[in-house]
Amino acid sequence: MTDLPSDNDVATRVRRSFARQGMMAAIGATLGSVSPGRVTIMLRPGAANAQQNGFVHAGAVSAIANSAVGYAALTLMPPGRNVLTTEFKINLLAPATGDRLVAEGRIVKAGRTLTIGQAEVFAETGDDRTLVALLTATLIGVDER
Amino acid sequence: MTDLPSDNDVATRVRRSFARQGMMAAIGATLGSVSPGRVTIMLRPGAANAQQNGFVHAGAVSAIANSAVGYAALTLMPPGRNVLTTEFKINLLAPATGDRLVAEGRIVKAGRTLTIGQAEVFAETGDDRTLVALLTATLIGVDER
Amino acid sequence: MTDLPSDNDVATRVRRSFARQGMMAAIGATLGSVSPGRVTIMLRPGAANAQQNGFVHAGAVSAIANSAVGYAALTLMPPGRNVLTTEFKINLLAPATGDRLVAEGRIVKAGRTLTIGQAEVFAETGDDRTLVALLTATLIGVDER
Amino acid sequence: MTDLPSDNDVATRVRRSFARQGMMAAIGATLGSVSPGRVTIMLRPGAANAQQNGFVHAGAVSAIANSAVGYAALTLMPPGRNVLTTEFKINLLAPATGDRLVAEGRIVKAGRTLTIGQAEVFAETGDDRTLVALLTATLIGVDER
Repeated sequence: MTDLPSDNDVATRVRRSFARQGMMAAIGATLGSVSPGRVTIMLRPGAANAQQNGFVHAGAVSAIANSAVGYAALTLMPPGRNVLTTEFKINLLAPATGDRLVAEGRIVKAGRTLTIGQAEVFAETGDDRTLVALLTATLIGVDER
Repeated sequence: MTDLPSDNDVATRVRRSFARQGMMAAIGATLGSVSPGRVTIMLRPGAANAQQNGFVHAGAVSAIANSAVGYAALTLMPPGRNVLTTEFKINLLAPATGDRLVAEGRIVKAGRTLTIGQAEVFAETGDDRTLVALLTATLIGVDER
Repeated sequence: MTDLPSDNDVATRVRRSFARQGMMAAIGATLGSVSPGRVTIMLRPGAANAQQNGFVHAGAVSAIANSAVGYAALTLMPPGRNVLTTEFKINLLAPATGDRLVAEGRIVKAGRTLTIGQAEVFAETGDDRTLVALLTATLIGVDER
Repeated sequence: MTDLPSDNDVATRVRRSFARQGMMAAIGATLGSVSPGRVTIMLRPGAANAQQNGFVHAGAVSAIANSAVGYAALTLMPPGRNVLTTEFKINLLAPATGDRLVAEGRIVKAGRTLTIGQAEVFAETGDDRTLVALLTATLIGVDER
């Protein structure tokens, strides 16, 4: 017997929350896999996430990387607890372009108050996969309203 | 006699580039004031930039703060040179909500290769103005294609 | 009547804690001014803080900048509460060299759980003063043992 | 036939440079393993690297993590080229204490101008090994004087 949420409950919770993030839809991001401590978000490059040269905007790369870590943190929260990002840092390693971007978020340490996670963002074209960004974020647990 | 661009040329260049950033339109951001080393970007909170609780998404806050610094850097570049963000760090200090967000970007140091800038993001409601985020970014100068 | 510590108490508390930071002595750092929300730390460049070229080591620049923010945060804590750094980010803008370095820490936001501060580090030689580093840090309040 | 330095040359170069970093000696850090793109630095907790509670100072943790990445970058530089840290970000995950700290630096991307690396810092006590910090750094290649 346990009061930990099941993997199914966790995935449902993440999918419901993601569906309410209007920004993810506005920039063309979709939710990928969800498992405890790990969440993937995809983005199809296009006008809604472009900067002036046609590459994906650093803000869009950051948004999917930050959301991937945020949802990875949410998978480890008990019911009634949510997370907020308090800070993040991103290094942009290569132009973000290709068939799609994939942000893979994972939790490094889930603490009582603070949770630390990292995300890698890859640009995929055919069989090609290039690391385009690295993000590290701090999240704080908060009681849900 | 000088080969430095005039303030008018600089503002025109920034406005043209901003108009090509599809993401800024997609999330509801608009360009504010432009002067050498300083650029302001505004965002109206709404569905296109919301996270799951109705606050502005950290990714949207980051996107306008990062763009404000990027365009502040562009104002100091000679014709034919552009800038790319290589990394940034943002601290989210308070929930981003209100009538509008204002990101004020400014350059701290314009170097030969790297330029460092910072942005403050304020949430404004009526006469109220709250600091909601602080960003520091590194940009690299690149030849325009 | 108030239970807030007086400015004298605050300065005494910071000076006592600083005296126990063996690392500050080991690298040649000394405490400067202390006021609510603001603390200054000085460093004399020398062998104990040098990197391989004779400049001050980025780790020493970071150490004084981080301590300046940490003590600035401590000035705003009630008796019995201490602070720990959870993360910081530093941009190194110019070679750190000269007669002395001065790290000026100040608090941007003192929250219930987290406190955010920034530091500027200047290199001074005679009347010359050059900004060599910018640091942003997050601190968490903890009960003193 | 190649003009790339041999692994032996690289290790010698790193050891010579490390020996000139006065700060590493002052805080009690020693160089561990050196291989292309990977360098390890150790630190014995003690007065010379302590903060006020007896834990290792965040500045000392940062210094060994930053140096580990810097030397990892140096192993990939051609003769006559050196590296400088332009920025780094560190998350402190747990109190740094134990028999010794080990900072493991590795290069994520070695670019023409900029090199990005990360370090993990572990606290070791007997067979116990705890991750205490994560650092991400940007370095710039410069011609040696």
